[in-house]
Amino acid sequence: MSDSTQGPSDRAQLLQQTQQRYDALAAQGLALDMTRGKPCTEQLALANALLGSVNADDCVLEDGTDVRNYPGRVDGIGPARALFAEFLEVAQDEVMVGGNSSLSMMHGVFRDLTLHGAGPDALPYCRHQRTRVLCPVPGYDRHFTICEYFGLEMIPVPMDDNGPLMDVVEKLVAEDPDIRAMWCVPKYSNPTGITYSDEVIARLAQMQTAAPDFRIFFDNAYAVHHLYPRQDTLSPILPTFKAAGNADRALIFGSTSKISFAGGGVCALGASRDNIAWFSTLTKTSMIGPDQINQLRHVRFFGDMQGIERHMQAHAEIIAPKFEAVSAGLTQALDGLDIARWTVPNGGYFMSLTTPEGTAKRIVALAAEAGVKLTPAGATHPGGHDPLDSTIRIAPTVPPIEDVVRATELLGVCVKLAWLTQ
Amino acid sequence: MSDSTQGPSDRAQLLQQTQQRYDALAAQGLALDMTRGKPCTEQLALANALLGSVNADDCVLEDGTDVRNYPGRVDGIGPARALFAEFLEVAQDEVMVGGNSSLSMMHGVFRDLTLHGAGPDALPYCRHQRTRVLCPVPGYDRHFTICEYFGLEMIPVPMDDNGPLMDVVEKLVAEDPDIRAMWCVPKYSNPTGITYSDEVIARLAQMQTAAPDFRIFFDNAYAVHHLYPRQDTLSPILPTFKAAGNADRALIFGSTSKISFAGGGVCALGASRDNIAWFSTLTKTSMIGPDQINQLRHVRFFGDMQGIERHMQAHAEIIAPKFEAVSAGLTQALDGLDIARWTVPNGGYFMSLTTPEGTAKRIVALAAEAGVKLTPAGATHPGGHDPLDSTIRIAPTVPPIEDVVRATELLGVCVKLAWLTQ
Repeated sequence: MSDSTQGPSDRAQLLQQTQQRYDALAAQGLALDMTRGKPCTEQLALANALLGSVNADDCVLEDGTDVRNYPGRVDGIGPARALFAEFLEVAQDEVMVGGNSSLSMMHGVFRDLTLHGAGPDALPYCRHQRTRVLCPVPGYDRHFTICEYFGLEMIPVPMDDNGPLMDVVEKLVAEDPDIRAMWCVPKYSNPTGITYSDEVIARLAQMQTAAPDFRIFFDNAYAVHHLYPRQDTLSPILPTFKAAGNADRALIFGSTSKISFAGGGVCALGASRDNIAWFSTLTKTSMIGPDQINQLRHVRFFGDMQGIERHMQAHAEIIAPKFEAVSAGLTQALDGLDIARWTVPNGGYFMSLTTPEGTAKRIVALAAEAGVKLTPAGATHPGGHDPLDSTIRIAPTVPPIEDVVRATELLGVCVKLAWLTQ
Repeated sequence: MSDSTQGPSDRAQLLQQTQQRYDALAAQGLALDMTRGKPCTEQLALANALLGSVNADDCVLEDGTDVRNYPGRVDGIGPARALFAEFLEVAQDEVMVGGNSSLSMMHGVFRDLTLHGAGPDALPYCRHQRTRVLCPVPGYDRHFTICEYFGLEMIPVPMDDNGPLMDVVEKLVAEDPDIRAMWCVPKYSNPTGITYSDEVIARLAQMQTAAPDFRIFFDNAYAVHHLYPRQDTLSPILPTFKAAGNADRALIFGSTSKISFAGGGVCALGASRDNIAWFSTLTKTSMIGPDQINQLRHVRFFGDMQGIERHMQAHAEIIAPKFEAVSAGLTQALDGLDIARWTVPNGGYFMSLTTPEGTAKRIVALAAEAGVKLTPAGATHPGGHDPLDSTIRIAPTVPPIEDVVRATELLGVCVKLAWLTQ
């Protein structure tokens, strides 16, 4: 990231060219939204048959449950538990299947931890002076918002291509008993797209924590969201934690939000039997049960994990070219300048662009002025504060590919412009 | 409720007869569940067409929202807000439409009150020494469970046929600043089936409260659940509270759980604009948005309030005879003894049976031993403690009518037996 090879006149010329190109692109009246990781219409259409997958004449399960009536249990219908057990790599009695939002489920578990604690013998967070949560960065803004809601202090932890820096994590959790939780997006992480290495998962499972009730929130939102046959593999989480004697430490969340419908999917929690029993008991105070009909729709539509995996291949065919267009566009725009780098993930919904220090906010603003909305710079860090102001999340799935190409060209121009006028 | 007209030998004879009848009924091997207010299969079938009411070719709303994708707002799709505004008798910007559980929504609002308070300027409950909640009794056990979850102290308030005794309520809320909330099921109340009078609603709206952030949770679960053309009428809640200058005091919850599908309905909150803005902001931390597809299914299936009302007439035709069977059965079993009374509601899901003091638990146990499960005695009171042990909730909707008849005969026999062996 140096511009040492360029003289002042080169730089002035480049600035002039770049400004001209920016003005020309801005004049095109672009109106593109790349702020969030949403499926595009073609992806949603893949699951259209799910809408009609449960009919009046097949609403009753083998165990006699009529999915149209009040649920008899809070942890979901049997066939959905079976499907998500496979999905989350846990046993069928280690899973609780919920409604349309895993975020809501995570929020609910933090509510339970705050008001009732991590188990029958643990103190609730609200009885402690403070609770601190490790947040690998860059990360997902909605995780940080949950911490803010519950008054939890966030400690950013740097990541590399293998996950959070474990030397840092191990030291923090060993020394500070106020650190009781940690966020992780272990596969195709939001926003970098990296997958935690086997070593990272093993060290998370084995590490000594000063807090006896330490919990890791594994938001495995992109568990099956491969873009290519060259898939990343993630160590099975709960088995690894069991082997380390810390089964209760891992809470694994998943959902079909980016598999079936983002507005009408199904979510699930995989965890030890003790955890499932504890959180089920507390969840019972908040509802009679989840929407069983929608759970059955998913079971009927996907059948099993092979069905989900086949479905995700069709997703990949639609969105992989968009990721490639971003990478190709950034290479074309920025190649040779050595001022930025970006991740090229094997799956997930995001790429992360690292820009010169102090330019990310300016780049996002420049793009917005020219008609391309990006995720606000800083959103990838707790409190919206990226100390280096150099991380931009790119979410390329929604726009048609020709718009991704145009947006990426604009983004490249904005990076250059911000760097040149810094 | 006296047995003064009967001599010892009459009583001995009656006991013998009653015991014989009990034994005979017990020998029939009944296995009936009347514990909860659930719709029966015939009621569920009325909404079967809802399962197919949204198709792939009509997933996009007039405003461009694709209901299959992530919601752009947390308060529900426009057409659902319009429908529930009418349902809850509020304006369209005074409503937030959610997922499949109004209980979950109420739990969420108590979570917000506990951790963030009733508005930007209110202290959260957790910052007060204690918070107390008025609970009209008999009431709904799941309301009490929510209070227990959040550590709220419950104060039972007696009810009569007009609602909670307002002299008691007014005195309590005027004197005790720790009383910050109150539960109400204002229409076809659970379990008595009574509807709050206009005077009660007006006094709830007008009363002086020591707590500036006092809130009433109106769980209007049975708003349209008439059994007969002779409907109870409830004062429009929010307009009454607005007129009294206390618009923020009323939080009105409704759902389609007992209109469409108990497992897969839609719920809503009606409240002042300030309340909706406040709770929407806090709700945003817990989810991207509700299941919009299911909201649209309901809009398409019901159309408007007239559609809902027509639908509820079909419900009434199925379940009104069951209520009548209970009343007729109890009259036949207990007539002339003057030992029990029961409510004969114009709507809702329950009747309340008042038995001789100290017998309710025994009656429920006797019924269970003979194969009829009733809601546990005491469930109608905070902490499961009915101080007179004389209230039994009857939920007659699920069993076929011939089973309701048999269960009611058994119930009558159990009342007599408990009274005679007291």
